[in-house]
Amino acid sequence: MSHNTFGHLFRVTTWGESHGPAIGCVVDGCPPRLPISEAEIQAFLDKRRPGQSRFTTQRREPDEVRILSGVVEGPDGLLTTGTPIALEIQNVDQRSKDYSNIADRYRPGHADYTYDAKYGLRDPRGGGRSSARETAMRVAAGAIARKVLPGVTIRGALVQMGPHAIDRSRWSWDEVDNNPFFCPDAEAAASWEIFLDGVRKEGSSTGAVVEVIAEGVPVGLGAPLYGKLDQDIASALMSINAVKGVEIGEGFAAAALSGEDNADEMRMGSDGKPVFLSNHAGGILGGISTGQPIVARFAVKPTSSILTPRRSVTASGEEIDVMTRGRHDPCVGIRAVPVGEAMLAIVLADHYLRHRGQIGA
Amino acid sequence: MSHNTFGHLFRVTTWGESHGPAIGCVVDGCPPRLPISEAEIQAFLDKRRPGQSRFTTQRREPDEVRILSGVVEGPDGLLTTGTPIALEIQNVDQRSKDYSNIADRYRPGHADYTYDAKYGLRDPRGGGRSSARETAMRVAAGAIARKVLPGVTIRGALVQMGPHAIDRSRWSWDEVDNNPFFCPDAEAAASWEIFLDGVRKEGSSTGAVVEVIAEGVPVGLGAPLYGKLDQDIASALMSINAVKGVEIGEGFAAAALSGEDNADEMRMGSDGKPVFLSNHAGGILGGISTGQPIVARFAVKPTSSILTPRRSVTASGEEIDVMTRGRHDPCVGIRAVPVGEAMLAIVLADHYLRHRGQIGA
Amino acid sequence: MSHNTFGHLFRVTTWGESHGPAIGCVVDGCPPRLPISEAEIQAFLDKRRPGQSRFTTQRREPDEVRILSGVVEGPDGLLTTGTPIALEIQNVDQRSKDYSNIADRYRPGHADYTYDAKYGLRDPRGGGRSSARETAMRVAAGAIARKVLPGVTIRGALVQMGPHAIDRSRWSWDEVDNNPFFCPDAEAAASWEIFLDGVRKEGSSTGAVVEVIAEGVPVGLGAPLYGKLDQDIASALMSINAVKGVEIGEGFAAAALSGEDNADEMRMGSDGKPVFLSNHAGGILGGISTGQPIVARFAVKPTSSILTPRRSVTASGEEIDVMTRGRHDPCVGIRAVPVGEAMLAIVLADHYLRHRGQIGA
Amino acid sequence: MSHNTFGHLFRVTTWGESHGPAIGCVVDGCPPRLPISEAEIQAFLDKRRPGQSRFTTQRREPDEVRILSGVVEGPDGLLTTGTPIALEIQNVDQRSKDYSNIADRYRPGHADYTYDAKYGLRDPRGGGRSSARETAMRVAAGAIARKVLPGVTIRGALVQMGPHAIDRSRWSWDEVDNNPFFCPDAEAAASWEIFLDGVRKEGSSTGAVVEVIAEGVPVGLGAPLYGKLDQDIASALMSINAVKGVEIGEGFAAAALSGEDNADEMRMGSDGKPVFLSNHAGGILGGISTGQPIVARFAVKPTSSILTPRRSVTASGEEIDVMTRGRHDPCVGIRAVPVGEAMLAIVLADHYLRHRGQIGA
Repeated sequence: MSHNTFGHLFRVTTWGESHGPAIGCVVDGCPPRLPISEAEIQAFLDKRRPGQSRFTTQRREPDEVRILSGVVEGPDGLLTTGTPIALEIQNVDQRSKDYSNIADRYRPGHADYTYDAKYGLRDPRGGGRSSARETAMRVAAGAIARKVLPGVTIRGALVQMGPHAIDRSRWSWDEVDNNPFFCPDAEAAASWEIFLDGVRKEGSSTGAVVEVIAEGVPVGLGAPLYGKLDQDIASALMSINAVKGVEIGEGFAAAALSGEDNADEMRMGSDGKPVFLSNHAGGILGGISTGQPIVARFAVKPTSSILTPRRSVTASGEEIDVMTRGRHDPCVGIRAVPVGEAMLAIVLADHYLRHRGQIGA
Repeated sequence: MSHNTFGHLFRVTTWGESHGPAIGCVVDGCPPRLPISEAEIQAFLDKRRPGQSRFTTQRREPDEVRILSGVVEGPDGLLTTGTPIALEIQNVDQRSKDYSNIADRYRPGHADYTYDAKYGLRDPRGGGRSSARETAMRVAAGAIARKVLPGVTIRGALVQMGPHAIDRSRWSWDEVDNNPFFCPDAEAAASWEIFLDGVRKEGSSTGAVVEVIAEGVPVGLGAPLYGKLDQDIASALMSINAVKGVEIGEGFAAAALSGEDNADEMRMGSDGKPVFLSNHAGGILGGISTGQPIVARFAVKPTSSILTPRRSVTASGEEIDVMTRGRHDPCVGIRAVPVGEAMLAIVLADHYLRHRGQIGA
Repeated sequence: MSHNTFGHLFRVTTWGESHGPAIGCVVDGCPPRLPISEAEIQAFLDKRRPGQSRFTTQRREPDEVRILSGVVEGPDGLLTTGTPIALEIQNVDQRSKDYSNIADRYRPGHADYTYDAKYGLRDPRGGGRSSARETAMRVAAGAIARKVLPGVTIRGALVQMGPHAIDRSRWSWDEVDNNPFFCPDAEAAASWEIFLDGVRKEGSSTGAVVEVIAEGVPVGLGAPLYGKLDQDIASALMSINAVKGVEIGEGFAAAALSGEDNADEMRMGSDGKPVFLSNHAGGILGGISTGQPIVARFAVKPTSSILTPRRSVTASGEEIDVMTRGRHDPCVGIRAVPVGEAMLAIVLADHYLRHRGQIGA
Repeated sequence: MSHNTFGHLFRVTTWGESHGPAIGCVVDGCPPRLPISEAEIQAFLDKRRPGQSRFTTQRREPDEVRILSGVVEGPDGLLTTGTPIALEIQNVDQRSKDYSNIADRYRPGHADYTYDAKYGLRDPRGGGRSSARETAMRVAAGAIARKVLPGVTIRGALVQMGPHAIDRSRWSWDEVDNNPFFCPDAEAAASWEIFLDGVRKEGSSTGAVVEVIAEGVPVGLGAPLYGKLDQDIASALMSINAVKGVEIGEGFAAAALSGEDNADEMRMGSDGKPVFLSNHAGGILGGISTGQPIVARFAVKPTSSILTPRRSVTASGEEIDVMTRGRHDPCVGIRAVPVGEAMLAIVLADHYLRHRGQIGA
């Protein structure tokens, strides 16, 4: 059972609401003797942190992470001990007043109604567990997951904002940190800036598509059936707030292809190992990694927190109009980029250990 | 851990290779006292069975299911006992000669290479566990899952074949059983027949998109985070052979929408309960079912078993061309329709029990 | 996988070392709308807290628990929300100097050697995760588990100290809180006081047997095989530090009995329900609760922290004598009583929800 | 969740009732490329098979095991493929008439009443899933588990029958196969023969204690807390039918010891590795294996199937006397010996893979 836990051998359990005293997670199953530091984890959290440009929520969330367990001081800094690593972030900006007017209102597109229907109560402040704040702990856990994966590089980028996709011929990883969108296409980033300013000023919001790529993944991770690597990536990415679609490699485009066009042909490489001549498969065949880059994309819906009034109802059955004031992201897909990277890292770390458990080596 | 098991409270463990003596599954956690029969399960298997038209593989797989445990004779037929239900299908058409020429060849687009790299050996006959034959057990288990869900209807349809999508304005569930494609649009079905005949005669293959819909699902199934209903649906559908993408409701189209356009507004219904005025969300908000129809789609890649030679290598490093003769589906997406329905049923049955466990009622 | 998690639907994940900044746990799967308070949890923690008599370690551990998540303010106090409940206790008495002399020494009977062999490093301060301090979180989680179980009473008692067993004919629950041993037999308690003073003054230690009893458990919890209620109780109790044996009902004494003597005969009760005329089974038949009191016992070994030097070795292979100074319990079995109660409560809460999930009602 | 599954990485799921067409199991997570054969598995099944002496039930259960999946023909016989291994045994001696007179009767000491109360129905023939016949699949799965453990020897013996314990100074493993009791003490075996003949002729039954020992287990298996090796052994052994108590090493006797007497002192061995001078701990310290022999014992209650009438009730509330005719074991503990060995093997195989997953090597 996994209502608040993700993973099997590398397991992440998160807890906390955005308006409680703290949020946290427990990372269990991490191998011992890995170097680790709060600073490294913090660096990933800072990528996700709101308020870094005018395009993300202006909530102040310093998101300072503390390691509370599972480490010991080694000769060159902290080392993991193989026991559970507890991470915690204090909540410092709990202006619950912002939400007071929505206490018994069901905001359209939010989990308010379903939450109430399921649990029979809810904490109206900040959406309870449905708050995107929880994703901070995913990013923190992902930073640890990366440590488990020797020689693997995991990166993400925003490849579509609203209806505007990047031009893949202009893809540059260097560009990703040069704009507030994690956009790998400088020209697209420039036009998105104008587009998103418009969205923001109207109090509207827009969706996006994020792509995450893992390079250096060894061949053999995953399993033919219910431990498929792509299945667990789909599960991981779909578990992120506001995600409505996940695809691997060609994804939905594969539906329109013929078998000839979709085949990744093979030849022997100069090192005597098989090489693939293309990567339509996105690095996974039959649920098992091929050694090629693993490529996944996910669609993030536009946030429902908008200024335009939308029709809704209250818990007591009154018909109302809801308009969400407050400090919200006009494009939540932006901050989903480091979250997507983290979830991919967690899946790969888990499968790395699962593979080693069954097969050895 | 779940390399061959799907689900938590309603659990399906499958076993068997297409060329061994039998395949089977164990359905564990089923509530007791549900009426059940081999005939009902067989009816769903027959939908998936190959060889029913010229558009699916001509392999003969009678797929006669036997219930070996977990039932007792009641006054009006078999009843589940609450203990594990073992289902088994004998393999009768094991013409392994068909595969003899590919014993050490890695077929492009198949799991041959990754399987070998992972396990250090493989059974070349029929792809081992990667064979789509395993999906028969999903369909059988799905038939039992439907029993767990009172008042829920789960149906599927093919909504795109190759580049050709249906016209949704012509959607008719009645049409689905009138053509060999599970196509809800009669005109599309007619044109697909011509298209697929061409694909088949060329020895080529084509991808497809399947849509599965569950109606009558109560509000409240799922959880805000790692037990999200959409997350588990994504996991379930991506675990089906050849699936490369999954989406819920608007799916990837949501990326292009504004918050205004994507919002599902609410009003009070005549029965005093909230009603949604649209279903962009596909029946799930914040990971929890809304009571609206649950709508999911998945993309199926074209099979790699084609007559056109593709470059590849052998296990010993020889460069070869591979051409797959044999009896293969030109569009494996067709037979994925009952499989998708079954996986959706299994996810919903599992969450139905999980919800009842935590919340009661 | 469950290296630091216990339970399935009611799940407890603990974290923390005795000499880190804090210890904590996450209780996941708790039903919503249960009244809960820090004070109630604290009351159980206070029973376990050291330093309450001269017979337990004089370490100062105020063990003040905080609830960090999973609750909301209701009309009459806190209510659970159905989301993860994070509990945390700050560590205030981390006198690590006490342990400085044993940094690379393997204390006989402790986990020092096995820990080092497994993980390749260890935190010598306080035994890392093997510290009995972790049991505080079990007691805290157990306090929440009790809330899940309507009408169930769970109590424990020390029934043997060293070679000295109680006289069961003198059993009085009222007596349990009248002595520092949770002993239900006043005469035994008096003699134990003299016995344990001797043990303590010699710097020695002694083992003990704890009995835990749950009354009011409904018939039907458990399962015939790997979800046997007694199996999970055995797992729960054996997971407590220093426990070396577990038994249910007659336990090992059943080996010496005949079928006639061990049978629990049945008759119809005045309320028209079956009643058992004895309870050799300890409230569990075929892995399923009978409705009678559930009776389990566990043996706690004497702590290895003693003043008498014992032969051992260091991590670097030096042969040494180890003598454990410090503030240790002469009979760790005493403080195991509330821990055993808590673990029994956790198992029962888990099975209560599991039963409800599969069977309903 | 694990109602019918045991283990995490090495997982065994059993199914089937004694009076259905077959029983079986699925062994999942087994490493690939292990040599395996039906004959090897059969050899262990034959140890458990009834009817081999006058002291076990005369039911005819040939227990011929078939491997249905998860293997491939290698150069020197079958090899595991790393995919699920399905094992099956046809039920051939289903004389259900023997049980017809107990259809709605609750046999005292059996699971009849609790089964009915839990599931609302039951198959009166042979006890459904509570039948000891299920243990055949444990033995079969245990035979595979042994393959996973290089250099480990797992053996068991009956050390007490009724009130009569063996003399440990006469322990000889060679003796175990020389008598129908798996007794390591020839003198005890001789006296047990007389004792058990008496029990059998009276139509009575007697309890027993089984000891299982694993030698060659590497140091480091297990975990400090909820993955304790002793915890999982307790769970495994308590899951066997009729078991009422489990102990490790000194077990309950440890309660009476002082810390001085219970300590296992250490010295450096001639090979430069630490050696223990005694094994009170039974090979496990802090939940982790020490490298010493792992020693566990479990108590088996006398079967309730006896000729002496016992008072009971029927499902409809009638008060009756129950007398169990039929072919039953007077001492079910005898046939529990190979079952206990198998469960210990399964636990160790699981922990071997879990350790390798987290730690490598």
